[in-house]
Amino acid sequence: MKNIVIVGIGGMGSGHAFAISSGSGNAVATFRDDRSGGFIHSTDTDLRTKMNLRGVYDIRESRMEWAKEHGFAVYESFEAVLADPEVDIVLLATPNDTHKELAIRALRAGKHVFCEKPAMITSKDLEDVMEVAKETGKIFYPRQNRRWDEDYLIVKKIYDEKLLGDVFRIESRVHGSRGIPGDWGRKKGCGGGMMLDWGVHLIDRVLDMIPEKVVSLYCQATHVTNKEVDDGFTLSMTFESGLQALIEVGTNNFIDLPLWYVTATDGSALIQNWNLDGKMMHRIPGDESDATPILAGSGLTKTMAPRRRDTVEELPLPQVEFDANALYVNLVDTVEGTAERIIKPEQTLRVLRLMEAALKSAETGEAVAFEG
Amino acid sequence: MKNIVIVGIGGMGSGHAFAISSGSGNAVATFRDDRSGGFIHSTDTDLRTKMNLRGVYDIRESRMEWAKEHGFAVYESFEAVLADPEVDIVLLATPNDTHKELAIRALRAGKHVFCEKPAMITSKDLEDVMEVAKETGKIFYPRQNRRWDEDYLIVKKIYDEKLLGDVFRIESRVHGSRGIPGDWGRKKGCGGGMMLDWGVHLIDRVLDMIPEKVVSLYCQATHVTNKEVDDGFTLSMTFESGLQALIEVGTNNFIDLPLWYVTATDGSALIQNWNLDGKMMHRIPGDESDATPILAGSGLTKTMAPRRRDTVEELPLPQVEFDANALYVNLVDTVEGTAERIIKPEQTLRVLRLMEAALKSAETGEAVAFEG
Repeated sequence: MKNIVIVGIGGMGSGHAFAISSGSGNAVATFRDDRSGGFIHSTDTDLRTKMNLRGVYDIRESRMEWAKEHGFAVYESFEAVLADPEVDIVLLATPNDTHKELAIRALRAGKHVFCEKPAMITSKDLEDVMEVAKETGKIFYPRQNRRWDEDYLIVKKIYDEKLLGDVFRIESRVHGSRGIPGDWGRKKGCGGGMMLDWGVHLIDRVLDMIPEKVVSLYCQATHVTNKEVDDGFTLSMTFESGLQALIEVGTNNFIDLPLWYVTATDGSALIQNWNLDGKMMHRIPGDESDATPILAGSGLTKTMAPRRRDTVEELPLPQVEFDANALYVNLVDTVEGTAERIIKPEQTLRVLRLMEAALKSAETGEAVAFEG
Repeated sequence: MKNIVIVGIGGMGSGHAFAISSGSGNAVATFRDDRSGGFIHSTDTDLRTKMNLRGVYDIRESRMEWAKEHGFAVYESFEAVLADPEVDIVLLATPNDTHKELAIRALRAGKHVFCEKPAMITSKDLEDVMEVAKETGKIFYPRQNRRWDEDYLIVKKIYDEKLLGDVFRIESRVHGSRGIPGDWGRKKGCGGGMMLDWGVHLIDRVLDMIPEKVVSLYCQATHVTNKEVDDGFTLSMTFESGLQALIEVGTNNFIDLPLWYVTATDGSALIQNWNLDGKMMHRIPGDESDATPILAGSGLTKTMAPRRRDTVEELPLPQVEFDANALYVNLVDTVEGTAERIIKPEQTLRVLRLMEAALKSAETGEAVAFEG
């Protein structure tokens, strides 16, 4: 059981406050919908058995008032958080450009740090923080929570268990049409832009799934709504074995392409949206020498003719079982030394370096030989 | 009125024979479905007013028999075709690797040449043929018929008329799951592979639509069903203005992604398939400061929250009017000197060079600075 204090109780921090205090781990306890609602599923750990929300702190007076109204204990200052010997873990949910300084101060004060994404704005900053963590013997744990998104875990299962044979191409997208919301998301100095906002998750997941070097990458960024930061990007990566990945974030897309599209030797899978609408199409071995040309636009095509129905079967997406609170649990277990760390700073460092390479590619129009 | 002879009456050549002799221009006269059927639409020219099918020739005896059975006049040899002073145009529908020799022989014999795609296997071959065309004063006309695909013309209209504002990204795909059919499509020496088979069309259309230089390209090829030639590829291109294009061909894709996906400043468009299922979503100007975070996987997102319904309208795809026989007509008009040539060999040369650059990129993992 560890004591945790949340620093920064805006959008994400307030979610953590509800998530930890309710034990549900569900940051959306206050935004109930059909799929959430703050309930603890049978497969989820009750967070109250692992950590105690000791208090919160924010530099804005209005947020401190909000916290008191909701019954959360408040600290008077960041110094006061660090000075409290009962605090084991500081959760940083402050703007991206403050992570470095606050993390280093907390580590030097003998606290473990649980840090919202992107962990740092640059790989250099993360290297510096990792160095301080090493010196102080404290844990710096980046919150890459989207490794426990059900859509991702489904794709990971298809990949790991070769449900459709060997995967040779994976596409991961998120599309919105609202541009970049918020007050600092368009500012470069604050760590704005979609690469750092969503890219950090989508890239982390694909690198987590595929245990290979990235040998080549090419990135195209968009600047539809502003010039300072990317408001979207398309990143193509080629891994050592030839496996291809495409990662795309768009904020000016009025029609959503599927969240996931996977092609493998014996079939394809598609996940359309976060409701997990989707399917797998799986080849049934047999005679396929029956292609009849079809009319396609102004011409005929045999190559693109559809399959005979008895040579393919439609399957539902596989089901996955997981502890939705695994990240919080692993944080505490890592701090207590009772489990292997799942989210490693080295992994996040690799993601940050890859994002830097991608943004460089977008700027120069050149591919980057990444880990060749 | 010009006399034309078809050399090579396999899949494509036999289609041309029906198309020209019926006047419908419809190569699928024998494969009737709801949308075709060999009928001449009110907007289509009756080809019998422009050209006369004087005969056919094929090196295979069985095909000559087939031609006679269907009432087509046959020539005894390629030499006999060239020796007939009544022949104005030779249509080459032979395997890709024979185009060069046959085209040069026909041009030197004083014939115009109408050549199936890919016009040549290499850009060097096309340069040589263009040189002979220049020397002889005869026309070499590559058959890039898919500029008259309705799906393409719809996208071109969206782009040209800015129906959704300024387009900043265009994606064009064809997906099948049958691998590469046919007897020579997997052989490099014969001009096999999907880049030459379908890429030549998809690239030609995008370059025709966007009057800009391609400054950077990156290509990933697949080799799922064979090692010798690409059985699919994903080509990313960036144009001078920053406009992005993705062109993809897949032959091991068991679920089809949309044929077209277009994103623009004020909306997006999608065409799912050759039946032209699709739509446009168009922004309605007004207050959009209403984002409420939604649950997305294991977290919240405001950026990817859907729009309020009154800030966007769904529109049908635009309708296009065109002469489905425009390519045949323009060929004859070009030969007769009465119209400007639509399909220019220079354009096809650019497409071939771009394909060579793309395959080089796929091989090396590097981006290619193409026309920057």
